[in-house]
Amino acid sequence: MKIIGERINDTWTRVKTAVSERDAAFIQGLAQRQVEAGAHWLDVSAGTSSERESGDLVWLVQTVQEAVDVPLCLDSANPPALAAAIKQVRHTPLINSISGEQKRLDGILPLLRDYDCEVIALAMDDKGVPSSMEDRLTAIRHVLHELHRAGVTDDRVYVDPLVMAIAANIESGRIAMDTMRAVRAEFPDVHLTSGLSNISFGLPVRTLINQAFLTLALAAGLDTAILDPLDRELRKALLAAEVVLGRDRYCLNYTRAYRAGLLNGPVGKTSHE
Amino acid sequence: MKIIGERINDTWTRVKTAVSERDAAFIQGLAQRQVEAGAHWLDVSAGTSSERESGDLVWLVQTVQEAVDVPLCLDSANPPALAAAIKQVRHTPLINSISGEQKRLDGILPLLRDYDCEVIALAMDDKGVPSSMEDRLTAIRHVLHELHRAGVTDDRVYVDPLVMAIAANIESGRIAMDTMRAVRAEFPDVHLTSGLSNISFGLPVRTLINQAFLTLALAAGLDTAILDPLDRELRKALLAAEVVLGRDRYCLNYTRAYRAGLLNGPVGKTSHE
Repeated sequence: MKIIGERINDTWTRVKTAVSERDAAFIQGLAQRQVEAGAHWLDVSAGTSSERESGDLVWLVQTVQEAVDVPLCLDSANPPALAAAIKQVRHTPLINSISGEQKRLDGILPLLRDYDCEVIALAMDDKGVPSSMEDRLTAIRHVLHELHRAGVTDDRVYVDPLVMAIAANIESGRIAMDTMRAVRAEFPDVHLTSGLSNISFGLPVRTLINQAFLTLALAAGLDTAILDPLDRELRKALLAAEVVLGRDRYCLNYTRAYRAGLLNGPVGKTSHE
Repeated sequence: MKIIGERINDTWTRVKTAVSERDAAFIQGLAQRQVEAGAHWLDVSAGTSSERESGDLVWLVQTVQEAVDVPLCLDSANPPALAAAIKQVRHTPLINSISGEQKRLDGILPLLRDYDCEVIALAMDDKGVPSSMEDRLTAIRHVLHELHRAGVTDDRVYVDPLVMAIAANIESGRIAMDTMRAVRAEFPDVHLTSGLSNISFGLPVRTLINQAFLTLALAAGLDTAILDPLDRELRKALLAAEVVLGRDRYCLNYTRAYRAGLLNGPVGKTSHE
């Protein structure tokens, strides 16, 4: 299970301020803490001010790379900003994201042809996010077809089934997990990824819902999660789920995390242990 | 999801003392707190002193029934003790347990013929607990065959796949969950149950492993769990898993638990909410 650290995103006010004030120390601290907490990629997003996005994104890439040495997940719907950022990266970047929307295909496919990138592919098209698993699969087939034509092989693609808020539709979790299973069955070489925070939108104590979804999505084939690596409860849930699913040989990661003090806290005590 | 409250078990020293001293107030407090926390059955076990088991178990049944009005799960391998306890119960009891072991079959089947009981059936036989899913299924087929011959229909049977310590075998969780899925496919009317604490034996911060197993086992078909209802973290995980699996319409149980203050605690905070 690999983690895309989601914190450097200017939809969060503190990050937005740091970007506009060019506060490198703040961004670099956030980058270092996420990598220390296990992030394999760092997502960088500066999309809230579209006229400045190119410059902001390039600054973020340079600033983050001065502090850490992990690949970046370039999070933008703006092809010129992506092209500018790609030219600055040290490692193969992950583009976040393409979809079946024609505008996205037209904007992102040329970048994937021209540069060595990986890409997140969303299960949606110009009509929006399909409500059924079957229609999401159809949308994904279309995106993958276009990606294949551009020479992008499945192992460079991270399919995101798009989990919606479960407070609005109680079937949202199941639809996302069923889509993962269907995609994995039809395209065994693609990666499966998902953001974790959408599902709990509108519910209290969101991390509990995120933890349950992470655990269940792992069993459904999720191999890469977009999440906050600094959410300690989420990391505990991930470590425990990998043990129970038989993916943590000799429980080594789990017991190492315990010895490092990462499993501690009030959650660890049961009433009669 | 129904819960069998596991706390009144004399393998716990405090309960053993209460039983030997006939400390009704302690036992009744434990009964009330488990029922308030959502237990549908209460397990009662007094098996550590075999020569006194009958009298101890009858006292436990009477004592618990003075305090709460839920069915009991009579936890014993001793047929005379079970027979004595069955005669005292107010509601249809759940016998814990039968298995493919000849001694258990010989001891428990006559009780099931003579009294209106439900029963937990363990996936094991005289050779012990089979290591593969296939052999556990074979053991279960044998027990169910004997139960059918005694007139016990599948809807009165709670199959326990027997989850072993994952610290000893990293496949333990998968084997238990695969057994659940196979049993459910072949016998759609049986219930599926499991103790939760075995899996985490020997590992630190056991509740984290128990939570992950509970979440994943629910997706595999678990409908009745033997657990400590006073373990608040486990209950939180259960409530969240039922939301994500689409089994909590309008998230009513989850939001009700939140309003009742049951989801609070340090686990509820993420670092940037």
